[in-house]
Amino acid sequence: MKKKRLNRKKNNPLKFVFTGTQFEKEISLQLFEYSEDSFMELSHLKATDFNNFATKNKQYWLNTHGIHDVEVIENLCKKIGIHNLTIQDILDVNQRPKFQEYENYWFFSLQSILPSETNEINSEQISFILGKNFLVSFQERKADYFTHIRHRLREKTGILHERSVDYLLYLLIEAILDNYFKTIDTIETNTEKFGIIDINEDPSPAILKEIEVYKTQLNHLKKNVNPIKEFITKIEREEFALIDKRHIKYFFELKDLCLTIIDNCEKIENSLSSSIELFFSVQGHRMNQVMKTLTVVSSIFIPLTFIAGIYGMNFVNMPELHFKWGYHIVWAVIIVIFGAMIAYFKRKNWF
Amino acid sequence: MKKKRLNRKKNNPLKFVFTGTQFEKEISLQLFEYSEDSFMELSHLKATDFNNFATKNKQYWLNTHGIHDVEVIENLCKKIGIHNLTIQDILDVNQRPKFQEYENYWFFSLQSILPSETNEINSEQISFILGKNFLVSFQERKADYFTHIRHRLREKTGILHERSVDYLLYLLIEAILDNYFKTIDTIETNTEKFGIIDINEDPSPAILKEIEVYKTQLNHLKKNVNPIKEFITKIEREEFALIDKRHIKYFFELKDLCLTIIDNCEKIENSLSSSIELFFSVQGHRMNQVMKTLTVVSSIFIPLTFIAGIYGMNFVNMPELHFKWGYHIVWAVIIVIFGAMIAYFKRKNWF
Amino acid sequence: MKKKRLNRKKNNPLKFVFTGTQFEKEISLQLFEYSEDSFMELSHLKATDFNNFATKNKQYWLNTHGIHDVEVIENLCKKIGIHNLTIQDILDVNQRPKFQEYENYWFFSLQSILPSETNEINSEQISFILGKNFLVSFQERKADYFTHIRHRLREKTGILHERSVDYLLYLLIEAILDNYFKTIDTIETNTEKFGIIDINEDPSPAILKEIEVYKTQLNHLKKNVNPIKEFITKIEREEFALIDKRHIKYFFELKDLCLTIIDNCEKIENSLSSSIELFFSVQGHRMNQVMKTLTVVSSIFIPLTFIAGIYGMNFVNMPELHFKWGYHIVWAVIIVIFGAMIAYFKRKNWF
Amino acid sequence: MKKKRLNRKKNNPLKFVFTGTQFEKEISLQLFEYSEDSFMELSHLKATDFNNFATKNKQYWLNTHGIHDVEVIENLCKKIGIHNLTIQDILDVNQRPKFQEYENYWFFSLQSILPSETNEINSEQISFILGKNFLVSFQERKADYFTHIRHRLREKTGILHERSVDYLLYLLIEAILDNYFKTIDTIETNTEKFGIIDINEDPSPAILKEIEVYKTQLNHLKKNVNPIKEFITKIEREEFALIDKRHIKYFFELKDLCLTIIDNCEKIENSLSSSIELFFSVQGHRMNQVMKTLTVVSSIFIPLTFIAGIYGMNFVNMPELHFKWGYHIVWAVIIVIFGAMIAYFKRKNWF
Amino acid sequence: MKKKRLNRKKNNPLKFVFTGTQFEKEISLQLFEYSEDSFMELSHLKATDFNNFATKNKQYWLNTHGIHDVEVIENLCKKIGIHNLTIQDILDVNQRPKFQEYENYWFFSLQSILPSETNEINSEQISFILGKNFLVSFQERKADYFTHIRHRLREKTGILHERSVDYLLYLLIEAILDNYFKTIDTIETNTEKFGIIDINEDPSPAILKEIEVYKTQLNHLKKNVNPIKEFITKIEREEFALIDKRHIKYFFELKDLCLTIIDNCEKIENSLSSSIELFFSVQGHRMNQVMKTLTVVSSIFIPLTFIAGIYGMNFVNMPELHFKWGYHIVWAVIIVIFGAMIAYFKRKNWF
Ligand SMILES: [Mg+2]
Ligand SMILES: [Mg+2]
Ligand SMILES: [Mg+2]
Ligand SMILES: [Mg+2]
Ligand SMILES: [Mg+2]
Ligand SMILES: [Mg+2]
Ligand SMILES: [Mg+2]
Ligand SMILES: [Mg+2]
Ligand SMILES: [Mg+2]
Ligand SMILES: [Mg+2]
Ligand SMILES: [Mg+2]
Ligand SMILES: [Mg+2]
Ligand SMILES: [Mg+2]
Ligand SMILES: [Mg+2]
Ligand SMILES: [Mg+2]
Ligand SMILES: [Mg+2]
Ligand SMILES: [Mg+2]
Ligand SMILES: [Mg+2]
Ligand SMILES: [Mg+2]
Ligand SMILES: [Mg+2]
Ligand SMILES: [Mg+2]
Ligand SMILES: [Mg+2]
Ligand SMILES: [Mg+2]
Ligand SMILES: [Mg+2]
Ligand SMILES: [Mg+2]
Ligand SMILES: [Mg+2]
Ligand SMILES: [Mg+2]
Ligand SMILES: [Mg+2]
Ligand SMILES: [Mg+2]
Ligand SMILES: [Mg+2]
Ligand SMILES: [Mg+2]
Repeated sequence: MKKKRLNRKKNNPLKFVFTGTQFEKEISLQLFEYSEDSFMELSHLKATDFNNFATKNKQYWLNTHGIHDVEVIENLCKKIGIHNLTIQDILDVNQRPKFQEYENYWFFSLQSILPSETNEINSEQISFILGKNFLVSFQERKADYFTHIRHRLREKTGILHERSVDYLLYLLIEAILDNYFKTIDTIETNTEKFGIIDINEDPSPAILKEIEVYKTQLNHLKKNVNPIKEFITKIEREEFALIDKRHIKYFFELKDLCLTIIDNCEKIENSLSSSIELFFSVQGHRMNQVMKTLTVVSSIFIPLTFIAGIYGMNFVNMPELHFKWGYHIVWAVIIVIFGAMIAYFKRKNWF
Repeated sequence: MKKKRLNRKKNNPLKFVFTGTQFEKEISLQLFEYSEDSFMELSHLKATDFNNFATKNKQYWLNTHGIHDVEVIENLCKKIGIHNLTIQDILDVNQRPKFQEYENYWFFSLQSILPSETNEINSEQISFILGKNFLVSFQERKADYFTHIRHRLREKTGILHERSVDYLLYLLIEAILDNYFKTIDTIETNTEKFGIIDINEDPSPAILKEIEVYKTQLNHLKKNVNPIKEFITKIEREEFALIDKRHIKYFFELKDLCLTIIDNCEKIENSLSSSIELFFSVQGHRMNQVMKTLTVVSSIFIPLTFIAGIYGMNFVNMPELHFKWGYHIVWAVIIVIFGAMIAYFKRKNWF
Repeated sequence: MKKKRLNRKKNNPLKFVFTGTQFEKEISLQLFEYSEDSFMELSHLKATDFNNFATKNKQYWLNTHGIHDVEVIENLCKKIGIHNLTIQDILDVNQRPKFQEYENYWFFSLQSILPSETNEINSEQISFILGKNFLVSFQERKADYFTHIRHRLREKTGILHERSVDYLLYLLIEAILDNYFKTIDTIETNTEKFGIIDINEDPSPAILKEIEVYKTQLNHLKKNVNPIKEFITKIEREEFALIDKRHIKYFFELKDLCLTIIDNCEKIENSLSSSIELFFSVQGHRMNQVMKTLTVVSSIFIPLTFIAGIYGMNFVNMPELHFKWGYHIVWAVIIVIFGAMIAYFKRKNWF
Repeated sequence: MKKKRLNRKKNNPLKFVFTGTQFEKEISLQLFEYSEDSFMELSHLKATDFNNFATKNKQYWLNTHGIHDVEVIENLCKKIGIHNLTIQDILDVNQRPKFQEYENYWFFSLQSILPSETNEINSEQISFILGKNFLVSFQERKADYFTHIRHRLREKTGILHERSVDYLLYLLIEAILDNYFKTIDTIETNTEKFGIIDINEDPSPAILKEIEVYKTQLNHLKKNVNPIKEFITKIEREEFALIDKRHIKYFFELKDLCLTIIDNCEKIENSLSSSIELFFSVQGHRMNQVMKTLTVVSSIFIPLTFIAGIYGMNFVNMPELHFKWGYHIVWAVIIVIFGAMIAYFKRKNWF
Repeated sequence: MKKKRLNRKKNNPLKFVFTGTQFEKEISLQLFEYSEDSFMELSHLKATDFNNFATKNKQYWLNTHGIHDVEVIENLCKKIGIHNLTIQDILDVNQRPKFQEYENYWFFSLQSILPSETNEINSEQISFILGKNFLVSFQERKADYFTHIRHRLREKTGILHERSVDYLLYLLIEAILDNYFKTIDTIETNTEKFGIIDINEDPSPAILKEIEVYKTQLNHLKKNVNPIKEFITKIEREEFALIDKRHIKYFFELKDLCLTIIDNCEKIENSLSSSIELFFSVQGHRMNQVMKTLTVVSSIFIPLTFIAGIYGMNFVNMPELHFKWGYHIVWAVIIVIFGAMIAYFKRKNWF
């Protein structure tokens, strides 16, 4: 399915465009307000009911399921002071991962991989707005990536509830990267068969078409992880005021996950390259076997047929034909030649 | 068509040379003068009628259709204080995109892709002069890239009329990059067929010639986008006084477009590389099938013909010929050999 | 065997997970306390008996055999003030080498290669905690890499006992890198056979499968050495207070070992690439030889059989058949053609 | 022709060596002395008659045709205070382009491409000494690259006579780079034929030998342009006192020329790579066609010949031979088999 | 011959190990003491007779032939205050070139190429210790690389005797790099034959084995020159107090030699890559020629043999056999078919 390309030559620059597919009937919000000693959850908040992140010493996480209704998203964003460029970025789901710093917030979007039963990889854009005491996450549809995070918030497990929202951002990205690993494991399992092509069967070029599919998928994964890695490298340089210094080591952890994903992709890519070489070698090997069969059969029987042909001629004066043992001598000659040929090709290892 | 190469060993360095093709009968200018609360448009201004960008607190956009008349362009440039090097750069349309900072203006040129019905890609050079309160754009011919921008100016839609001309430059580049996307979409559609080469047909090397055309086009696109990306990276480093700080995020947006274009080009390039491998595998596969056919037929009938040849010999003393069931026994032998061969090749999966 | 992937979506972030295999029945510790003039060794210390690294002016080396018991490791780490992230890193043995600086210690993990009798490469994760006056090393199982270091400590050979624990760390890493060299030497010996493929035998594609195994192993080695090199480059920049300035030159020595390992890997990789090219050339060469045999035999005997076939026809009116020397003339013609063919193919060097 | 390698193990380091070929009978000099309002030209100055660049407020250009006479060049260089290393660099014409800053002058050498009628590329080393008010250029032989520059000096066209000698250097390098473009245009024209290899002819490996020649030439061009680009990048960083700030934009122009040359080289290189792939695909295509012809002919006639062979046997008891229509039935069978085979191969598209 | 690997897990770190071969019977030293106006040479100094570099205002060059006697080298090094790490580096001759700065001296080692008559490249490690007024060089065996330098010292030719020992180091490295050029020239001469493979001969895969040898050699050269280049780049940045500023331009000269060596290696590598492609194209070309021969012969004679077979059948009722001109008509048909086939294949250019 072709992706919808955002038209950038709009007469009205303030008319935002959603470039994705509608998955949810209605946009629904969940709001979490938490601090070291308080917790409040609004599960099915309507966008119109949301006001703002009022209390200074609380942390807020606002999660959105569905972004298909341009007006709703636009109004929501306006309430928290989001720039027009960011609003369009949230709505344009067919972008490469991007990071942009604004005066009072960060925008960060990435592609979350959705493992599927079929051979295809689907990805969904998840966008984040990180402010001083709030984090807004925009998901195209309901998904259960973040169940464990909600659990930790509610149960006050770990340190999440004691920390600022940048720690929450770390947990969300970690959950998304976890899906990349699952996808790579699936690809690794699916591509193992290419390394064990049967040497004695003529391989079908359809194998190469399939390998190409996996190469494209791995490329897609790498292209989407690389910008995340770069974004974390910026954090590592301690460039941003919105990240608590105590949390930098958690983002390091994410960078390591990115590097591991890229390493794994490259490992499988290398193995696919070798499979392609194996394919061509098996093809050539099969050709050699076929030609050796043809050559052995032809080289033995064509000369023998010639001999039979000689004594099938009808010349009146052919003395050998009248010899008593002529026929038997010819048979002897044929058997000798046959045996010599077999021995010769045997020695040459041709069969 | 070979491009006209600028002769650089001119006796008179002040004789400028136009290296392109004349598309318009006459050079025509459009001048837009705007500010937050005023707007004035001169649609068919003659170059001789243009004076200068007088009013300090107004913004000016001067657009040129046609640059074939060296004298006209030279005079126009002189009026706004353009350096001789820049004048020649505007007139030499067969250059790689370039950016040059001068004392009181910027020069920036790029290649705009013209989508065409045929398989070819045509590009046209568009040059920009960005001054303190003016932007001059030079187009080789009339085109409708910027219609939406003129609309926004006239209707005061968006923020264009409130901002300085560097914001206008952003919109113009965005419109040009939009054409790149359209071209890439066309290439993507056209190259999809290479991934579905029929495995059971001998592929024609003409396919490789066609793939080469698309590889060259993608290379051409990347080569022309890369300098734009580098130019924006310079803006990102806030090196330039002519860019309003509030507008830097818009140029970031452009950089992202460039990166997406390059990503898309590389994706198609990778897929074309795989198609080439597929081509060679199908060629080898076809060869294998042809040879297997030959080998099966020859291996079965050449030995049988030898047997028939034996009993076609004319020896006087060939006892088998006189056996009552000799002929029938030979037939039986032939059928047994035939069946064994068929079974053997069947088991080997040769047909 | 598939590696166990750490589940990162845990409801309880404080529940650590061991992702490896249990090799030892019980976790056992060795503690070395040393200074310029003292030495004390506790060989089979239980984790519960360990307290802390009390004496300021002594150096401590605590080595662990076995990390499979999560609770034991967790308690041990808590005693020396290790962060939760580090505890999980120690227990997750399927990671790329990593380095992380904490407030009062360094964490550093790498993969130690275990040479084995079979064709496989096994690696074990070794983690280090470097503090002001202590070094803790975590090994998955008992191994004899560090025998010489224990010897030096006990016998006060060299300068080890006079120096701070960062010098000890240098010796431990050196011992681990030494195993890499042994593994590379084994790979080099095993891959030499690929360069001497017999030109006159049809090579089996199984060779390519074997080459792929070695390419993957070399890639694995390089991927594990590269992070060590990068970690030492950081030391080279004198970024760390925990490294005595006098010891930096020893870490340079390690960087050189890393570079040599990478060089050796690349040398073998290049040679394997050439072996693949050799494989395909031998395959093509064999094909050429087979086809030349077929062509020579067929080109000689098919025309001769045609001649014999002519005089095997049963036309009533065939004058040649009644010539006295007809049969002998045909033989003469056959011999002349045969000789000419042989001469022709001989001159063409076809056999 | 092998290049003469400079022997660096000389007993006497002050014995300079000329490593080129003598083209001119005698070394001749041209001296230009100019300023905004004066001009003086000495056309056939002998090296011994030259003194020095006396007048402070004049600019001097000293051009040398021929550098084969070591003593003459040495004396000349001594008069203007050139270091021994530079003298040897001027005389060793088989070097990669180099740039070296000295206390009171710059040394800069590059390879000038000489377009020739044959398929070969010849290059000549041109060395420059740039001082405060003088530029010395050393050419191996007379050539007409710089005619337009002499013209501009004499006629006071443009701004050359008003500017310092670094502007002159810009013009000289521009003229040399212009020759690169001419050479690339020739290569582009010559290599176009490789893209239109006839698909129905067996291509000769001689084509690959020819492609290799062009690849080597393009590589040679790139290797010689890259150092020029790097040298200009240094100027761009405004590192040098000898360059008037107003002239930096002219050197930018040169950098752009270098980048364009490299782009063009890479474009042709990519196209040559594709031609190699095309070569192999046409070779495989031809093989497929040949084998299909063989297979069709053999598969049709070998079985038919077998049938004929059957009824050529001489068994006494072969009832079919005595059937009245036996012969006609065999013909019918043969025709049916023939037709079925033709139809089968036709449907398979084998001819 | 396998290289001896240094065992790094020694119980006694102070036991140094020599990893090379003994070439000289005894270690012999030459000591040169020089200054602008004095010169003293001790030709066959024993290591035990050497004391130290006493006189402050003299320069010392101590050269060693043979390093096989660990004790001798150790004692010598101790006398001039060399660190244990350096001593082991001098004795371990199987290392990549390395550079290490110590408090009061520099250590620098490189591989000197020994041109040999056979096809192999041997290299020897030469180590340098550069101090304030002394340079010690360690050679594995006697060689005549430095004859011209000794000559210059003795005869006071050039400026060597006036300068500090870093100038001497420049001359020594220059002499070693000179050997690289000689080796590359030999390789270039030896590899030229690969570009002129005979198109009409089936090429042997042994050629690829030989090409691999040269590729490995070129790689070896590049790997050994690259660290020298990097070391000089450090000097270029004026980081070292031991280098007289006046001498930096000489080290630039060396960097240029390194770059030229690398360029030359890459040029030959590219040409070898093209030779491999040429190899495969000639192989395919030969195959095409063989198959065309087979196809032409088979396609002509198999159908003709079928015709002869028809009239060799023994049906009683075969009217044609009784026609008077039957036999002649068959001959006519055969000749017509033969001629048509020849014309067809001629037109197809198959022979
Ligand atoms: Mg990519
Ligand atoms: Mg990568
Ligand atoms: Mg990595
Ligand atoms: Mg990587
Ligand atoms: Mg690899
Ligand atoms: Mg690779
Ligand atoms: Mg690849
Ligand atoms: Mg490119
Ligand atoms: Mg890119
Ligand atoms: Mg990208
Ligand atoms: Mg790519
Ligand atoms: Mg790829
Ligand atoms: Mg390839
Ligand atoms: Mg890799
Ligand atoms: Mg590397
Ligand atoms: Mg290296
Ligand atoms: Mg390397
Ligand atoms: Mg290689
Ligand atoms: Mg190159
Ligand atoms: Mg480039
Ligand atoms: Mg470029
Ligand atoms: Mg480029
Ligand atoms: Mg290429
Ligand atoms: Mg390309
Ligand atoms: Mg290499
Ligand atoms: Mg290399
Ligand atoms: Mg170079
Ligand atoms: Mg290079
Ligand atoms: Mg290169
Ligand atoms: Mg190469
Ligand atoms: Mg190349």
